[in-house]
Amino acid sequence: MRNGIKVFAPATVANVACGFDILGFAIDSPGDEIVAKRNPNSKELRITDITGSKLKLPYETDKNTATIGILNLLKDLKINNIGIDLEIHKKMPFGSGMGSSAASACGGVFVVNELLKLGLEKKELIKYALDGEFIASGGYHADNIAPCMLGGIQLSKDANYYRLPLPKGLHVLMVYQQVEILTKAARKILSDTITLQQHIEQNTNLAGLIIGLYNADYSLLKNSLKDVIIEEQRKHLIPNFDFIKNITSFNNALGCSISGSGPTIFAIFDNTINMDAAKESIEKELVKQKRRFKIYESQINQEGTILL
Amino acid sequence: MRNGIKVFAPATVANVACGFDILGFAIDSPGDEIVAKRNPNSKELRITDITGSKLKLPYETDKNTATIGILNLLKDLKINNIGIDLEIHKKMPFGSGMGSSAASACGGVFVVNELLKLGLEKKELIKYALDGEFIASGGYHADNIAPCMLGGIQLSKDANYYRLPLPKGLHVLMVYQQVEILTKAARKILSDTITLQQHIEQNTNLAGLIIGLYNADYSLLKNSLKDVIIEEQRKHLIPNFDFIKNITSFNNALGCSISGSGPTIFAIFDNTINMDAAKESIEKELVKQKRRFKIYESQINQEGTILL
Repeated sequence: MRNGIKVFAPATVANVACGFDILGFAIDSPGDEIVAKRNPNSKELRITDITGSKLKLPYETDKNTATIGILNLLKDLKINNIGIDLEIHKKMPFGSGMGSSAASACGGVFVVNELLKLGLEKKELIKYALDGEFIASGGYHADNIAPCMLGGIQLSKDANYYRLPLPKGLHVLMVYQQVEILTKAARKILSDTITLQQHIEQNTNLAGLIIGLYNADYSLLKNSLKDVIIEEQRKHLIPNFDFIKNITSFNNALGCSISGSGPTIFAIFDNTINMDAAKESIEKELVKQKRRFKIYESQINQEGTILL
Repeated sequence: MRNGIKVFAPATVANVACGFDILGFAIDSPGDEIVAKRNPNSKELRITDITGSKLKLPYETDKNTATIGILNLLKDLKINNIGIDLEIHKKMPFGSGMGSSAASACGGVFVVNELLKLGLEKKELIKYALDGEFIASGGYHADNIAPCMLGGIQLSKDANYYRLPLPKGLHVLMVYQQVEILTKAARKILSDTITLQQHIEQNTNLAGLIIGLYNADYSLLKNSLKDVIIEEQRKHLIPNFDFIKNITSFNNALGCSISGSGPTIFAIFDNTINMDAAKESIEKELVKQKRRFKIYESQINQEGTILL
């Protein structure tokens, strides 16, 4: 698109093992790209192109994750009769657990804020991005939206977002196998209750994870990146889950669990040698099984959604 | 006791609203005093005096919280036939939720480590103090023991203890009303299960509390010092719970909840003016009700168990 501006919105890992619904981090790649351009011949927001999605995504702006937030934003600011053409270039599959809907939602409101020079801060844009996320996931959880917009690892609490410090040298392996799991469905299979003992264990792990991040205590991180509640209930939806987790553990990952509601599996390493070794073993097996899959290696993204 | 050495072991607040079983902090006063002396005419550990307890505490060393850990310590170090006389001066009631048994257990092993110059570090002594705590509470929880021994606010995880940073100017109000609640009994009334929603909320509060401590973010502390699981189930055991909590809230406490398994109620303030005002109102009401009660005002203790 000529004369347009382009933004990048990163993939994200929500839950992060022990922080169900409240914790997430962004990775450097993949990430969606959204292009926006003023259209003097139009008086409305339009989606002119969607690429990269096997799923047929809606062109109706009141139904697409990328545009719902924009409509609400324009409405709140009483901006009418303005022509904006939008291209959405998906770089990750919907229903993969990599925060695909969050990336489109963040990219959408961010690009329009830039295009029209509205001057809203990122934290103010999150509210609108959440509107887009809502139709995809059925909930107002910011565990993908906050890191996607702001970068880093973020805790969401009461509509506030807290960036946690990141020790050096963390690397993330993402293993996506083509099985679609929709967040809404993945939520439905979760039991409404847990035991007090599970709560105490998960609570302790979350505390350990946060302290480990503040103190750059890798051994504490390794002892804390565990999910004793959700993983057991969802892992049967993901082919090769135990195999992949065991391989990452054998290669000294700090932790491995389900990214968001899956099926992507993430593992965190403190060096690339171990990560590469794990990647190679997993790749070999998935090729042997003739799976459709994709493996990403990345660092944690610090910038969030940015202008390209 | 002439020629003896004396140690001080502080009262502690376990759970700290959102950290059930894993979090605790020590306060400057009250605290138990334990005195120890070598006795050349004896070949064993003896309790020669117990003061300050309305409850009849056992003089048998294999039954008293203060001495069980000592016996195990001496056994592990293969120290036999040594005469030690011990005085235990209780400064807080048993079954008050102020970590009375932890104070005796920590004081006991600490004083003997000093007396015999055994040279164990505090973190090594915790293991033995936990043996004493076990008979009192029926569990190996270090949420009182760790802060009592080490001071500050401590997270216990997998037999490791992590001291969290303390923002300046925190003050603690403790309201004890004479109703005895034994930890074992208080545990029994707790439901074995909670909802996933309660878990998420409590988990978020714990994360907020820890981040609030690291960032000295008083507003986040205030939004996080909440217990949505245990308090509701136990508060009916404590007279005037809602009244006291409301008074502290009215006086801008950062948080107020049950100390350990109660009946003591703790409230944290960021200044003494508000704390004093809350204290006065509570005192007035409890006097009017002709309650037997005691109110303590204290700072958070940083030293833990010390030689006097």
